[in-house]
Amino acid sequence: MPLKTPRNENFAKLTAGYLFPVINQKKKDYLAANPNASLISLGIGDTTHPLPAAVSDAMASYSKGLGSQEGYEGYDPKCESTLKEKIASVLYNGMIKPDEVFVSDGSKCDIGRLQLLFGTKATVAVQDPAYPVYVDSSVIMGRSGLNNPETKQYAGLTYMPCTPDNGFFPDISLAKDSDIIYFCNPNNPTGACATKPQLESLVNFAKEHGKVIIFDSAYSSFITDPACPKSIYEIEGAKEVAIETTSFSKLAGFTGVRLGWIVCPAELKFADGTPVKNDLGRIMSTLFNGASSVAQQGGIAALDNINQVMDIVKYYLENAKLVRETLDSCGIKYYGGDNAPYIFAHFPGRDSWDAFEEILTKCQVVTTPGFGFGPAGQGFVRISAFGQRENVVEACKRLANHFKK
Amino acid sequence: MPLKTPRNENFAKLTAGYLFPVINQKKKDYLAANPNASLISLGIGDTTHPLPAAVSDAMASYSKGLGSQEGYEGYDPKCESTLKEKIASVLYNGMIKPDEVFVSDGSKCDIGRLQLLFGTKATVAVQDPAYPVYVDSSVIMGRSGLNNPETKQYAGLTYMPCTPDNGFFPDISLAKDSDIIYFCNPNNPTGACATKPQLESLVNFAKEHGKVIIFDSAYSSFITDPACPKSIYEIEGAKEVAIETTSFSKLAGFTGVRLGWIVCPAELKFADGTPVKNDLGRIMSTLFNGASSVAQQGGIAALDNINQVMDIVKYYLENAKLVRETLDSCGIKYYGGDNAPYIFAHFPGRDSWDAFEEILTKCQVVTTPGFGFGPAGQGFVRISAFGQRENVVEACKRLANHFKK
Repeated sequence: MPLKTPRNENFAKLTAGYLFPVINQKKKDYLAANPNASLISLGIGDTTHPLPAAVSDAMASYSKGLGSQEGYEGYDPKCESTLKEKIASVLYNGMIKPDEVFVSDGSKCDIGRLQLLFGTKATVAVQDPAYPVYVDSSVIMGRSGLNNPETKQYAGLTYMPCTPDNGFFPDISLAKDSDIIYFCNPNNPTGACATKPQLESLVNFAKEHGKVIIFDSAYSSFITDPACPKSIYEIEGAKEVAIETTSFSKLAGFTGVRLGWIVCPAELKFADGTPVKNDLGRIMSTLFNGASSVAQQGGIAALDNINQVMDIVKYYLENAKLVRETLDSCGIKYYGGDNAPYIFAHFPGRDSWDAFEEILTKCQVVTTPGFGFGPAGQGFVRISAFGQRENVVEACKRLANHFKK
Repeated sequence: MPLKTPRNENFAKLTAGYLFPVINQKKKDYLAANPNASLISLGIGDTTHPLPAAVSDAMASYSKGLGSQEGYEGYDPKCESTLKEKIASVLYNGMIKPDEVFVSDGSKCDIGRLQLLFGTKATVAVQDPAYPVYVDSSVIMGRSGLNNPETKQYAGLTYMPCTPDNGFFPDISLAKDSDIIYFCNPNNPTGACATKPQLESLVNFAKEHGKVIIFDSAYSSFITDPACPKSIYEIEGAKEVAIETTSFSKLAGFTGVRLGWIVCPAELKFADGTPVKNDLGRIMSTLFNGASSVAQQGGIAALDNINQVMDIVKYYLENAKLVRETLDSCGIKYYGGDNAPYIFAHFPGRDSWDAFEEILTKCQVVTTPGFGFGPAGQGFVRISAFGQRENVVEACKRLANHFKK
């Protein structure tokens, strides 16, 4: 007999599975049908480069120590306060305080947890296209109506198109009726990175209208342009309006190790005067139990060896350059890939999934259809620069062979 | 200027901070005022025994490997399917299927995520007393009204008292108007463990009325009584009504390593026919990114060396026996401590926090007031058996000195 317990009806609104498992399944299906295909995945943004030895050694040594009385730790490992201090000093140059840092198991989980901070009636604006978790988590939390089969947009959510026409920086005033503005910078999937004046306009808009910004800077380590801030807190007044969520995943190759953090400044307050960080602290202690102590040790070692970590970021940016050069040689217009590990290739007038299929079947290269990140991603394909060099070189060769005029 | 974004008003309903940070703060305050005190913590249920070498070595070796191209892994480490298979075979003896297992970073986080499965109107019943996360997460999700200052109960939640009078097994019919029944077995904090007929009555009630049971078996490895099932799925028909959530924390000392799992059987379905596991899968892929790969390697090693792991469980049960003998010698009535790592000591007519303070100041032993687990915990103090033997022996000596007639 089925349950009478009511289902969260919002799950029925979701029009498809979470994007990346769907891509993974398409990859598997293709391999099942073409067992000899030598697929190269530049789809899911998954790190491939080994960790610096200092990082893997630190985790190994700590793990080994868990087998001894002196080295054993349970809840609340001592290193967490050290990690917060190093995040504040190494990555924020002291702009934020260690007690404004909440260490976590990653950004995706944090985006889910942050949803709990706000009232059920709070409305949402997102860049279109953007990382799908902002929309999906908002739908699951009941912040939307149904998906419109024509526009492919969820009712009640505000989509701020990011297109070549606006340099991929949206018209923020579209968010005038939204309480929460999600902003991913550098943007996943477009690779666009906002300048300081652009972020100032975002912060000023939020301040003027009392809105909160959830600023996802998961890819900030890839920013090379000195005109582009790496953190929203480089913008004056941002502490009164912005929560920053970010991660060691792409910074230090921790996609499997799992480590991230949220910054929630003391200045950020609800209308009743409650500091947002108080409620966030309650969430992080009640519905979360800290990041793995082993991962935290790795995080500390990564920050202690930040130059080695950044060498790997540079390696991926070199990959991105190879992809950009290939697309140039094919006359395919693209965006991103200079301040982000993603290249957003434009196939004007094409369906994203159709272009995805062509690249999959003709080049045996897995990408991600731009449409999976939002309706405005139609006609684009995201190519990831995460990959071993020889695979990226081979993928570029295949793309060139197929697309070169 | 404060935000206009609405606060989740449910946070204002919470009457106190999450229990264990509050206890930790009281411990710190006492130490600040009494810097020479030699405190022994039998408060927070935190594991203290080193991991078996096979487990710490497996994590160390995997961590080390992350520094090499052959050993590096990102998202979706290969071991996850192995871990699911071993959980199903070693811990469930094949009663459940690997694809019904969802690997996670721990039970507390899972209890939060499971809240998202059900409609906002779904109502909740809890054992009273019980692990505070069921109530706190239900309040945060808006399943309750305000806390009544007289009864200390939240309006809209159903409390099922577990007392010496009913052998700590509640009157399940109290949950007649509740959609979700949280059931912690062995119970934290009472240490009570339900027999098979008792669990049959729970499952039959849920089946008859179409209710879902969230069965928290985090302490099941401590069950020694063969009359007590270790999993709800030992009860016929449970797969149609119960989700089981549990953890490596207390089974294998992974409180800091972070690893847990949910079992959601294929048979469990909502009224619209949707398998609950479909929606759970969407939650686990959209709002979670998998447990740390290092922790998963440790979990596999723990299951491959289950006898060594169980030796540590026995060590804690020996600790529990020492505490029980001490309380016996003092004429203090207690419950639990034979199928659970917790001893629930009764101080009839006393305020729990008052007894907690007496034990803290007179014996320098940190416990947890039973009231922190729910109104029916009034008059009780929970003593944890997690500790190094010499500390437990010393704590017992102090308790005996103070309380012996």
